[in-house]
Amino acid sequence: MGAEINNYPIEKTENYKNMINGAISSLSKVQLSNWTAKQAYIGLGALICAASEQQIDICPMEGFDKEKFDEILGLKERNLTSACIGAVGYRSEEDTNQFLKKVRKPIEELFETI
Amino acid sequence: MGAEINNYPIEKTENYKNMINGAISSLSKVQLSNWTAKQAYIGLGALICAASEQQIDICPMEGFDKEKFDEILGLKERNLTSACIGAVGYRSEEDTNQFLKKVRKPIEELFETI
Ligand SMILES: Cc1cc2nc3c(=O)[nH]c(=O)nc-3n(C[C@H](O)[C@H](O)[C@H](O)COP(=O)(O)O)c2cc1C
Ligand SMILES: Cc1cc2nc3c(=O)[nH]c(=O)nc-3n(C[C@H](O)[C@H](O)[C@H](O)COP(=O)(O)O)c2cc1C
Repeated sequence: MGAEINNYPIEKTENYKNMINGAISSLSKVQLSNWTAKQAYIGLGALICAASEQQIDICPMEGFDKEKFDEILGLKERNLTSACIGAVGYRSEEDTNQFLKKVRKPIEELFETI
Repeated sequence: MGAEINNYPIEKTENYKNMINGAISSLSKVQLSNWTAKQAYIGLGALICAASEQQIDICPMEGFDKEKFDEILGLKERNLTSACIGAVGYRSEEDTNQFLKKVRKPIEELFETI
């Protein structure tokens, strides 16, 4: 895809392609699924930022029934799995949680400068 | 921490605490490290967005020598591990890669509306 977009000979990507394919094919199914899930979490981080910037709430969730989600969304047939959920929307006026203070670690604890 | 910040009795969090502790303690060391890494990738996503919004470049990287990083940063003694790297900075004028077109999957391929 990169070769096509930037108009360089596909042969030049051969070594890179082999390196990537080698690295990926050496991963077990569980390792592969953890790796792709992590990449999905980068997107989840972007979604959280984009939503909150527009004052839209988002609730990122794990701990759901992945098997069931995959089944309902027909992901298995496509060799895909669900990694995480982000429920996006405007908060209800009746939601009492919105009045709670946010629970966040203090910056000094979260970051470290070396 | 939530109880303290929002001023509700700590006893009320007992069931929730037990549920979370139960879920976490049932994870193997590898599962735990994958789970915490995923949470770190949410932050990586936020970092990518924050940097690019300010026209600062960031190069998220995996595939580095985690053992060596942990050693150099003294993470092991603190029961921490490195998950991912993000090199942040302004691009060099001499960097020829900056003139390449970005390689991105088309939106229609990346998102699906159901
Ligand atoms: C059903 C449900 C499942 C959740 N699962 C996870 C999880 O697995 N991992 C996690 O870090 N947060 C999880 N959360 C927490 C939310 O993502 C979020 O942090 C929480 O609602 C508090 O958001 P706030 O601190 O911005 O108000 C879950 C929340 C809900 C309601
Ligand atoms: C040394 C190095 C290691 C990288 N490792 C990974 C990786 O493990 N996973 C990944 O998704 N991208 C990895 N990347 C790719 C970069 O994060 C980034 O996508 C790439 O530099 C292209 O960025 P651009 O498309 O915004 O120009 C790596 C890049 C470099 C230079």
